[in-house]
Amino acid sequence: VKHDLAAAVLAGDVRVLARALTLVENASAEVRLGADDAGADVAALQAAVAPRLGRAHRVGVTGPPGAGKSTLVSALISVWRKAARRVGVLAVDPSSPFTGGALLGDRVRMTQHLGDAGVFVRSLAARGAAGGLAAAAEDMADLLDAAGFDPVVLETVGVGQGELEVAGAADTTVLVLAPGGGDDIQALKAGVLEAADVVVVNQADRAGADRLEAALKAAFELRQTGMGGVRQAPPCLATVATTGVGVEALAATIDARAAGGPAAFQARRVARAARRVRAAVERRLHREFWGSREAELARLAGEVASGRLSAGEAVRGLVGAERVSEGGR
Amino acid sequence: VKHDLAAAVLAGDVRVLARALTLVENASAEVRLGADDAGADVAALQAAVAPRLGRAHRVGVTGPPGAGKSTLVSALISVWRKAARRVGVLAVDPSSPFTGGALLGDRVRMTQHLGDAGVFVRSLAARGAAGGLAAAAEDMADLLDAAGFDPVVLETVGVGQGELEVAGAADTTVLVLAPGGGDDIQALKAGVLEAADVVVVNQADRAGADRLEAALKAAFELRQTGMGGVRQAPPCLATVATTGVGVEALAATIDARAAGGPAAFQARRVARAARRVRAAVERRLHREFWGSREAELARLAGEVASGRLSAGEAVRGLVGAERVSEGGR
Repeated sequence: VKHDLAAAVLAGDVRVLARALTLVENASAEVRLGADDAGADVAALQAAVAPRLGRAHRVGVTGPPGAGKSTLVSALISVWRKAARRVGVLAVDPSSPFTGGALLGDRVRMTQHLGDAGVFVRSLAARGAAGGLAAAAEDMADLLDAAGFDPVVLETVGVGQGELEVAGAADTTVLVLAPGGGDDIQALKAGVLEAADVVVVNQADRAGADRLEAALKAAFELRQTGMGGVRQAPPCLATVATTGVGVEALAATIDARAAGGPAAFQARRVARAARRVRAAVERRLHREFWGSREAELARLAGEVASGRLSAGEAVRGLVGAERVSEGGR
Repeated sequence: VKHDLAAAVLAGDVRVLARALTLVENASAEVRLGADDAGADVAALQAAVAPRLGRAHRVGVTGPPGAGKSTLVSALISVWRKAARRVGVLAVDPSSPFTGGALLGDRVRMTQHLGDAGVFVRSLAARGAAGGLAAAAEDMADLLDAAGFDPVVLETVGVGQGELEVAGAADTTVLVLAPGGGDDIQALKAGVLEAADVVVVNQADRAGADRLEAALKAAFELRQTGMGGVRQAPPCLATVATTGVGVEALAATIDARAAGGPAAFQARRVARAARRVRAAVERRLHREFWGSREAELARLAGEVASGRLSAGEAVRGLVGAERVSEGGR
């Protein structure tokens, strides 16, 4: 049955894909990461699609609320559709408590592509576990990739730490800004400018667009000086998503990054896989280690709090019982 | 030699204490937490002082820049000195790259206590490792505690995540606000109001103090409603640190929290010790696990990035090699 699921996903069956996405979305991080043997069905699905991953260009789109990200993504989809590319979109909303599958508020703007079998849009809302959202988005993007969608767009609502993590799951991160509300680049979270591979000044027909472009230029010059000029400033493009101005050029700039094939993103993908496997292994190590030692930790913490043991002695008591005499002194 | 160091610290020798603080400050988190056997001298010092810990009331003082924290701490010290208590102060500046020991800018306001052997002030500046500052502050507070200072004040500059962690190392957290610059409680980081055991409206003679008190009252009422009224709102006091108005009442409110002796803080101290020991154990587990497996992780990450392996298979390959066939498929 599970093999049929994977086969249907690989064949591009969108109904089965929707089911597979729900299966992965609802699985715990432990199950998705292979750290929990209970998730055999999810593990089998992931193992079955693994050989078909890496064909899609994963494009993260991030930026402050009001910058016009959804409208811009919708306009980009139109360009990609003209080239007969099948586009997958994961719209991630870290601030929404609603579970995925439903259309979020501003996803409605993508309704122009409703009914187009070459466009698959899926929403993903906030989950409980910290860091869980980015990991879930990455695993769900795998399925869109396996199903043959290319590019796979990871669009986030707002810019926060969680959104940055989601952008980090992409091969190319597009930062969208706009004059007015979202034009204060000083207010951007640390790391957001640094994570951008392409910067877009959207709503470029509005007052303040020149000022925003100048501020960006200054920020990147400052960054290059600060970093010894090692990294080039990312391309900065002007668009008006509502009219389509500049959107073809943006699509071309994004596509050019994938011109070298999967090899172009190999280093980033290896780093991402390493980070992911490392996190999963550590989660599993913690669970296995503490599973039988929580009571001992509580006892030792009591000893430390009462001054009968130093914190270091408690650590050695837990980790190196075989190497040091139990209890320390 | 190290035993002499501990003995001198316990005897209250401030010159040796200063040296011991530097030793601990310069040690890596691994060494301080007993996760690295190389730090035998630090471990011996910590083990030797452990039985003498817990006598000091650790008072964290936090709040936005400009609220008058340093002036208030200086005024509190004067009150405590009248009661012949020996006061230790750790002034923590997460934003400063300067190493500790030197007087920071606003520490100069504490010069009124210079030359008073009953007051020991030490500055601690930002360190590289995330979370390292709070852990270092906690370990340095241990030494002040062991040397017989009581209370030990942990004062932070500004309110950020790091500052909150430092406040979390205290038995009592005092949040200092002032009308004007630092009066927007909406701008406080999440968790700051929740962490406060005592709230102070400093510069209470200035315009806007009433409004700030009203905003605080509303915020705590809202919080209580939101939490089902489980936790009482903390006492809220008005002070004018520059003239001393309200400072005796504040000192009395702080001191009252320690009236029950160390038992009053036992639950919090056990939780703190557990958090600390857990973090140290996990750091050590990671080091021991990855020490011999970094190359294998890099190889597996390459396989995952190339689609030859799923992330879950790589995890199982690393953790459960004895349980599943190597490589998965």
